[in-house]
Amino acid sequence: MRTICSEDHRLHFPQAELHAGQFVTPFERPSRVEYILARLRERGLNDIAAPDPVAMAPIRALCRPDYLAFLEHAWDEWKRAGCAGEIIPASFPARRMNADRAPTNIDGKVGFYALAAETAITAGTWAAALSSAAVAQTAQRIVAGGARAAFALCRPPGHHATADMFGGYCFINNAALAAEAFRADGVARVAVLDIDFHHGNGTQDIFYRRGDVFFASIHGAPEHAFPYYLGYSDETGEGPGEGANLNLPLPPGAGYGPWAEALDAALARIRAFGAEALVVSLGVDAYKDDPISFFTLDSPDFLDAGRRIGRLGLPTLFCMEGGYAIEAIGVNAVNVLEGFLDA
Amino acid sequence: MRTICSEDHRLHFPQAELHAGQFVTPFERPSRVEYILARLRERGLNDIAAPDPVAMAPIRALCRPDYLAFLEHAWDEWKRAGCAGEIIPASFPARRMNADRAPTNIDGKVGFYALAAETAITAGTWAAALSSAAVAQTAQRIVAGGARAAFALCRPPGHHATADMFGGYCFINNAALAAEAFRADGVARVAVLDIDFHHGNGTQDIFYRRGDVFFASIHGAPEHAFPYYLGYSDETGEGPGEGANLNLPLPPGAGYGPWAEALDAALARIRAFGAEALVVSLGVDAYKDDPISFFTLDSPDFLDAGRRIGRLGLPTLFCMEGGYAIEAIGVNAVNVLEGFLDA
Ligand SMILES: [Zn+2]
Ligand SMILES: [Zn+2]
Repeated sequence: MRTICSEDHRLHFPQAELHAGQFVTPFERPSRVEYILARLRERGLNDIAAPDPVAMAPIRALCRPDYLAFLEHAWDEWKRAGCAGEIIPASFPARRMNADRAPTNIDGKVGFYALAAETAITAGTWAAALSSAAVAQTAQRIVAGGARAAFALCRPPGHHATADMFGGYCFINNAALAAEAFRADGVARVAVLDIDFHHGNGTQDIFYRRGDVFFASIHGAPEHAFPYYLGYSDETGEGPGEGANLNLPLPPGAGYGPWAEALDAALARIRAFGAEALVVSLGVDAYKDDPISFFTLDSPDFLDAGRRIGRLGLPTLFCMEGGYAIEAIGVNAVNVLEGFLDA
Repeated sequence: MRTICSEDHRLHFPQAELHAGQFVTPFERPSRVEYILARLRERGLNDIAAPDPVAMAPIRALCRPDYLAFLEHAWDEWKRAGCAGEIIPASFPARRMNADRAPTNIDGKVGFYALAAETAITAGTWAAALSSAAVAQTAQRIVAGGARAAFALCRPPGHHATADMFGGYCFINNAALAAEAFRADGVARVAVLDIDFHHGNGTQDIFYRRGDVFFASIHGAPEHAFPYYLGYSDETGEGPGEGANLNLPLPPGAGYGPWAEALDAALARIRAFGAEALVVSLGVDAYKDDPISFFTLDSPDFLDAGRRIGRLGLPTLFCMEGGYAIEAIGVNAVNVLEGFLDA
């Protein structure tokens, strides 16, 4: 399985993440990629390549133009406004406020396009986000070209990003971009399986009214886990998308037993949907030692999960998402890939 | 004019305000009250008293019960969850997310009940917010009892707080509480005039569908100024409240000329509405040297503004709101009161 990875992910490394009322070094940091690359090499998965140049047209089709303009120019506007720190939202269109009119002021704009405040934008964020999208695009083409699978080692991740909001460490939704690329390639029915600990609210939001892309997510129940305000099991899609959204929230402390049951339920629904290509939002923060999550999967469980996904027999693109137990992230992520190859 | 002030405002003094991507000492700080008290004494306005005990029933009638329970218990829950810092929201129900289901997790709850992230909750915030409400209640009773006016030296301020959200340094909407008290006392028509630099989004939200309480606000245009997502001139009220909401946004750099015109327009509408009592949300951050605002009023302008308000001839309760040019806050706030008394 070929891995696509860009050095440019390093351009995004905020000094600060707002966490529990303090600034901490971001859990989502460049060394995550290093651990995954090291483990790939350790396991002989040495086919690692840089991405092709980013294709902007599909990104423009996925995201709102004003949001992309914001992402591209936010840093300059922030600095021009004399703001000393990195870009962190402090205001947002709360309940019964106006979410249709973007402010002119950069502080107001930041909040308008944010879904959370833990994720800072830095000078290099836009370039890094584009490189991550390019990684997903390049890896998708490998699968579209006939490979059984490819691994998009995306960073920053993407599954929390909507067409018009950043947050949860995400800026552009790489998995959604890849799913749309399969559709554009003529694949009639695509599934996105999100096994990251956190609900893939961005991917759900993007495809919620779509009947051609099935979305399934196994995640910490929203009453207890970020992103908190989406991911309930009664969110099943709308309009033409009714029935094409499957949320499988699990309670604090859930181990591999219920997790694997949820995975099997998701895989059965993907099969029943008739998906012809699969995008896996591959987060490994379901791991027992993850510092910001509450499932209790162990490393061998990821191998088993990979096997189950592999048995679907679909052309599969793995898109890296979360995972913050950094020393274990390589083993856990590569275990999913090895399980898949072993299926 | 009697001033009501509680020492308990000091119980709320967060270490940190999230501002321009960094933590700074909050602009809204206890010394603001000291400067106002000193100026009152300097000008011979020595009738300063402590509030009566807080009356909870009117607060429970104004705010959502789950919001009050959150405010009361947030600090304990936050500390029990092991959070190191003060309470600062990092997630929030963004666009197309679920704003009807409050999470169980305290981090998710904080974001659910927040409208901005600059305002930290500390161990003493609940007690301070109640003391501020008590100040407004006590001062309102003085006016209801026949006094021409009274000054509620509220801190924390209130006009950004809705029935279910805190933010913008506000927790309980003191001005709205006072307006409701006038109504409960049998005053048929009450007006709230908000001259704080920032739009009184909380007060607007509370009375938006009410025909018995007129709300007028002169403020920095929302495209350019916090709270950004409310305060446009086309927000005129809904249902029975249609026509009873008047927003007068002004652009960056606006001086006393256009400001006084807006004030006269607001006063004319309040007169036409037939208000029998007036609550003034008295912020003085329209001042030229205010560090987080962009109007250019000078200190004598506040004297003139007070005179114009006084000429309405209504029983008037002044509720202290913002003002962050701290050395000037005493002169500016007391100028409004002296202008009023001089009218
Ligand atoms: Zn995650
Ligand atoms: Zn203000």
